[in-house]
Amino acid sequence: MDRIEKVQNCLKTWEVDLLIVDNPTDLFYLIGKELSLGRLVIAQSNAILYVDGRYYEACKESLEIGVEELAEAAIEGERIGFDANFTTFANYEKLTKLKGELVPLSNPLLTIREVKEPGEIEFLRAAAALGSKGYDFVVSLLSEGVTEEELAIELELFWRKAGGERVAFAPHVAFGENSAYPHHHAGKRPLKQGDLVLIDIGVVLNHYNSDMTRVVFFGEPDPELQKIFHIVHQAQLKALEICKPGTLIADLDQAARSHIASKGYGEFFLHSLGHGVGLDIHEAPGIRKNGEGILKEGMVITIEPGIYLSGTGGVRLEDTVVVTSNGFENLTNRPI
Amino acid sequence: MDRIEKVQNCLKTWEVDLLIVDNPTDLFYLIGKELSLGRLVIAQSNAILYVDGRYYEACKESLEIGVEELAEAAIEGERIGFDANFTTFANYEKLTKLKGELVPLSNPLLTIREVKEPGEIEFLRAAAALGSKGYDFVVSLLSEGVTEEELAIELELFWRKAGGERVAFAPHVAFGENSAYPHHHAGKRPLKQGDLVLIDIGVVLNHYNSDMTRVVFFGEPDPELQKIFHIVHQAQLKALEICKPGTLIADLDQAARSHIASKGYGEFFLHSLGHGVGLDIHEAPGIRKNGEGILKEGMVITIEPGIYLSGTGGVRLEDTVVVTSNGFENLTNRPI
Repeated sequence: MDRIEKVQNCLKTWEVDLLIVDNPTDLFYLIGKELSLGRLVIAQSNAILYVDGRYYEACKESLEIGVEELAEAAIEGERIGFDANFTTFANYEKLTKLKGELVPLSNPLLTIREVKEPGEIEFLRAAAALGSKGYDFVVSLLSEGVTEEELAIELELFWRKAGGERVAFAPHVAFGENSAYPHHHAGKRPLKQGDLVLIDIGVVLNHYNSDMTRVVFFGEPDPELQKIFHIVHQAQLKALEICKPGTLIADLDQAARSHIASKGYGEFFLHSLGHGVGLDIHEAPGIRKNGEGILKEGMVITIEPGIYLSGTGGVRLEDTVVVTSNGFENLTNRPI
Repeated sequence: MDRIEKVQNCLKTWEVDLLIVDNPTDLFYLIGKELSLGRLVIAQSNAILYVDGRYYEACKESLEIGVEELAEAAIEGERIGFDANFTTFANYEKLTKLKGELVPLSNPLLTIREVKEPGEIEFLRAAAALGSKGYDFVVSLLSEGVTEEELAIELELFWRKAGGERVAFAPHVAFGENSAYPHHHAGKRPLKQGDLVLIDIGVVLNHYNSDMTRVVFFGEPDPELQKIFHIVHQAQLKALEICKPGTLIADLDQAARSHIASKGYGEFFLHSLGHGVGLDIHEAPGIRKNGEGILKEGMVITIEPGIYLSGTGGVRLEDTVVVTSNGFENLTNRPI
């Protein structure tokens, strides 16, 4: 089983004899099963899945690895790795009863999951295409008096009928001044002439997430909002210009951030430039000012600069891209 | 602010000067805001919410408690309580840098949240009513050849159009032998004459969850499945008979479990009897064999015994009930 081997190949680097995997998303990545509770213990030469009565029969029948009843006592190793970013303090205290030294690792699977396999990129491309279709659908519904919430619900129904599993997150549809809140929830606000409309949406298809943000003007826009729209767009292009293997993640963020700062809006770019997308809507790598590491071929990330003017409105433009051998492919694949 | 006072009233019992609340559901319960990230620090005489740039303006405008930029350094107390069941080991390590002794508490808010206020029961009643409507809708669609997955999708669309926010969990619709897996996911299996149909579904309305399970026979059922249907139904009635304030939670589980055991199917009841329902689909109290504590007026719990026969099929019957002053009200409110 290929992905479990990827973990086994990291055990030495992590300086552990085995890794305990409890995170359901990691479990799905490794064994292809959705378990609300389960524990996979990966050692150099084998892997055993521990599940309770709800899953035992189904897993035993279909998996090629060992399947046992959930029983922590069976775990033995000199150095036992666990995910410090998933394991709660209460579960950590239970682990302390194991023989062996506990080694906290920070999201160990994410360092593997952040580089996508071709099959995963195919799923992400399909999710992004369905995401873009949903965006076009929302735009087609814009009319005076329609509320943010109505658009959000119609979009959910559209995606579900088109085969989407669920929304990646509650659709952010924000009209006018509401767009100044980066995480506004769609509400009862009706659409008025002259409103800016911010649409930040994502859908899950085949377990993989899409994520995109667009801004459209409904009627004649406020001149300052038009101005920041162009600044944000240019900032995104600045980042995309250097989006390729080897680029420092901090430099990618800086490319967009310094452009916005140079236009005098630095303090209004309230968040990081982007994040990895995959089985989770937010995963590694984080594209932050102080982000570590470099872009690698196969990483799938969002690039989403924004400027938010309290009381007036905000602009964020977000594409999901995959880093290719010599640049990037824009999965969102839709004009600004 | 009433709910924060409820927490303040517990600080002494927990032997802490202040409580750190990071869990987004607890934050919603306490301040009525959906935050993906935030930290509420509750002391005897005040409460301060720490949020990042995404939420600062919106919270500052609308909340009556103190709102500050997320900055852990400001937290000071001699004994600092934190939720050991939510705080990751990595975040715990950050907390160790605070002055003061860290006191791990196990889901402290759940002991407050498990007893619902009248307004919450109203929301749970409305969610359960929408849940039951969804069940009737699914039953109306049963016809030879329809797949589990088709029913699951139709149900989601039905609920969303009717005002439901989202499904509480992916609808479990299981035909025939698939029903023997307590957590089967709806798949491509078409419905055949003589199939048992297990429907375990829930919807979220006004942030509160519904949860119910029913079994219907499509055509002439297998005689053993008919038999276990009656055993499970009787087991549920045995539990409901003693469902009132003061009953030991372990006794409630035992009432159903011992009936099933007395009929020779004890080993096929693979899970606990039920769980609390509220803002989370699974919350306190857990209704388990070794569950601690007693039922209290205002608790909202599921009662869901089941018997699962591998290769043949399974029966689970689940109602959500609220414990009243002298018994219970069945929120699911729908005949078996």
